[in-house]
Amino acid sequence: AVPTETTTTCDGNHVHRLSCDIGVISVQTALYGREDSETCIEGKSLQQISNTECSLLGAVDVLKSRCDGKKVCELSTNIFRPSDPCSDTYKYLQTKYNCFPAIYLVTCEHSVAHLHCDVGQVISVYNADYGRNDHTTCSYERVPSQIQNRDCSNPTSKVAESCSGKNNCTIEASNLVFGDPCVGIYKYLEVAYVCQYPSIV
Amino acid sequence: AVPTETTTTCDGNHVHRLSCDIGVISVQTALYGREDSETCIEGKSLQQISNTECSLLGAVDVLKSRCDGKKVCELSTNIFRPSDPCSDTYKYLQTKYNCFPAIYLVTCEHSVAHLHCDVGQVISVYNADYGRNDHTTCSYERVPSQIQNRDCSNPTSKVAESCSGKNNCTIEASNLVFGDPCVGIYKYLEVAYVCQYPSIV
Repeated sequence: AVPTETTTTCDGNHVHRLSCDIGVISVQTALYGREDSETCIEGKSLQQISNTECSLLGAVDVLKSRCDGKKVCELSTNIFRPSDPCSDTYKYLQTKYNCFPAIYLVTCEHSVAHLHCDVGQVISVYNADYGRNDHTTCSYERVPSQIQNRDCSNPTSKVAESCSGKNNCTIEASNLVFGDPCVGIYKYLEVAYVCQYPSIV
Repeated sequence: AVPTETTTTCDGNHVHRLSCDIGVISVQTALYGREDSETCIEGKSLQQISNTECSLLGAVDVLKSRCDGKKVCELSTNIFRPSDPCSDTYKYLQTKYNCFPAIYLVTCEHSVAHLHCDVGQVISVYNADYGRNDHTTCSYERVPSQIQNRDCSNPTSKVAESCSGKNNCTIEASNLVFGDPCVGIYKYLEVAYVCQYPSIV
């Protein structure tokens, strides 16, 4: 399907936000650099916007690993600062993404995730991430130090390995199962999955 | 359409919350006063609840400007304190609203909002607001002082002026375009719009 959403953020310490009301984020392309001379040009010199063939390789992988399978994803363009593809050019970050119609499930640490489909259908895990990406999810009565790190993204294939192909499945959101991507932080498991009829091969 | 949601909050420093899972808030009526003798009466004397013809003029406009076009809207009944329509009566705030099926888009400051419709359809902007109404939206790596003001509501017609009637449109969320409704606060643009076939006049 053609990407339906686009977020463009001018370079600098600004928030790049992707979000899906319905379904979960599925990043299609991500450009960090400059490919036209209309975007983010206020107050910039001709010299800063003339190079329109500048783009950082691998930017899409960073966006995919941070945002795929989530309903909301915020990051800063500063994330690419160490690897500047064209330092004399004023850049922007432009991400194109779909809102993929998956079931989105959040399970707080030390809870058990219950994935399930209707009779005859099986689970197909689109994405799973055990860590913390905001300050509000699974935050009830957590002390500030337990929830202040929101860059603890840890995509995992474990949920797919144990659940894909089954009609229903449970898996515990714990360090024992997923390892500990950020010690001292109270974490949660985000899973995006779909239910489908098993393909008869 | 008949209002589908009602929120009633007894007077005092309490949170009056409107929210829509699907679509955006469209306030229909708002009563600050008293029109019956059953609502919010615990522990109140007869004298405090006998006047059932008390209502503050213009309350609906306050609710509309704060909440229309949003998915969530929280305010306190204290907001009406300075203009008390019947001081000896114990009042409540009752808002009736619809969840209007609009596309809801959030664009953080210094990002570009991309509004778009399918082929043959045009944008019709229902509401747009450039400011800040909560502490979590567009908050990634913002220092607390940049996100602590959540009463910075600034409804604007600029998005409608540049985008209504077009199939797609981009507009930058910046002070340059919208002015600065709250200096020092990191802001975002909330837009609620629908796609419709152009009315052939």
